[in-house]
Amino acid sequence: MFPVGFGARAALVAGSNLRVVLVSPRNPLNIGAAARAMFNFGFSRLRVVNPYEVAFREARSAIGAHQILEAAEEFSSVAEAVADCALIVGTTSLGHRELEHRLRPLEEGAPAIRRQMKSSPVALLFGSEKFGLSNDDLAHCHWLMRITTADRQHSMNLGQAVAVCLYELSRGSLDVAPKPARTPKPAAAGETEQVTNLLLDVLRRSGYVNPVTSASTENKVRRLVRRLDLSARDAPVVLGMLRQILWKVDQR
Amino acid sequence: MFPVGFGARAALVAGSNLRVVLVSPRNPLNIGAAARAMFNFGFSRLRVVNPYEVAFREARSAIGAHQILEAAEEFSSVAEAVADCALIVGTTSLGHRELEHRLRPLEEGAPAIRRQMKSSPVALLFGSEKFGLSNDDLAHCHWLMRITTADRQHSMNLGQAVAVCLYELSRGSLDVAPKPARTPKPAAAGETEQVTNLLLDVLRRSGYVNPVTSASTENKVRRLVRRLDLSARDAPVVLGMLRQILWKVDQR
Repeated sequence: MFPVGFGARAALVAGSNLRVVLVSPRNPLNIGAAARAMFNFGFSRLRVVNPYEVAFREARSAIGAHQILEAAEEFSSVAEAVADCALIVGTTSLGHRELEHRLRPLEEGAPAIRRQMKSSPVALLFGSEKFGLSNDDLAHCHWLMRITTADRQHSMNLGQAVAVCLYELSRGSLDVAPKPARTPKPAAAGETEQVTNLLLDVLRRSGYVNPVTSASTENKVRRLVRRLDLSARDAPVVLGMLRQILWKVDQR
Repeated sequence: MFPVGFGARAALVAGSNLRVVLVSPRNPLNIGAAARAMFNFGFSRLRVVNPYEVAFREARSAIGAHQILEAAEEFSSVAEAVADCALIVGTTSLGHRELEHRLRPLEEGAPAIRRQMKSSPVALLFGSEKFGLSNDDLAHCHWLMRITTADRQHSMNLGQAVAVCLYELSRGSLDVAPKPARTPKPAAAGETEQVTNLLLDVLRRSGYVNPVTSASTENKVRRLVRRLDLSARDAPVVLGMLRQILWKVDQR
């Protein structure tokens, strides 16, 4: 129900060229979570190599992504699962073994994957929850990719790692035309001054403005109202409040 | 065991200024997953508002992040959970309701949050798995953030959404970001809420707030006060004004 929105990530057309390959996943919930993330970010081709539980296709965690689970292809070896791909990228943590591959941080690897996806299928491999990709699995990879994290010792959850990778992969399709955030239209200076004067009236009649020092207080209030940066939408609301308060204060 | 590596994300020192606030989470597994993602990306301050299951502290999904779960603070309202924060950002999906807040994509919101975190605490709110943040929750937010996804209808899993947001937030520590102009230190949420409540008192006694529609008016006023982005310097001045006005209004 939350951090999700729709973006015109047009390059997702190319998303069909990505194969998310889960190698020996143990927990069907994680397979479902991977499918859900794929669905969220516009990818559809899921491949599973030797899942420990065969009943993964009904994983409840796939919310909204059942089609992806149903269409998932099963393989008994990494070699078969990546046979049609032009680029094979393995995901890995650092440090638990000597790496013989080139290792790129996700931010740097994602653009390379996107470029390749424009012309041919790319496989992105994720290992099992416990052991990651084996040396045999890694041997199929052109290079490796890791998510830069703060902790040296601990790995990410499989579903979360897939989500972060796919988020970064889909990111580029937005880069083409970054839309500026909608900033609210500011109130016209005349309106801002109306707010100032009404507020000053209220403050005077409430005894907040001391007649002796009123000139400097007026300027302070004037500057304060400017700092509020009232929008064109909010200024009339504030004016309405002040009028009502002034009416009340004047009733005395 | 996979896409994780160690990066010199030194700015994670500032990570202690982020409060990840889960509002009414239903599934302890998701709370654990959120804690795990926090641990992965170098954040530690978890806050939980009204969790449905109280036994969340033992969530097995927290792998490696039990300290974060144990130190998690529990609150019974959003107002209390964000009282010490200068910036409150809600995460949301698009389309399920009319949004009255400024909405930023994660890529754009994250740098703004990072800048604020350098000087004061920031709260990042995530709603419940089923319903997201309520309108009452949203009224406490300065602006909203969404993860740009490919699908319009479906939401992300809570743990995955937290992971993607924190990945993006930690990303910047690698960027050599240009320094923005010095912006004034914002008021703490507790002060902003004081301003809101005093203003509501004044409006009630002035007859501006109609008892029949008071709940929606209260939220409108709450959001309006947030949009003013009061600075730490101006908030006490505004409080002083409101106290004086209230005193006057009460004299009748």
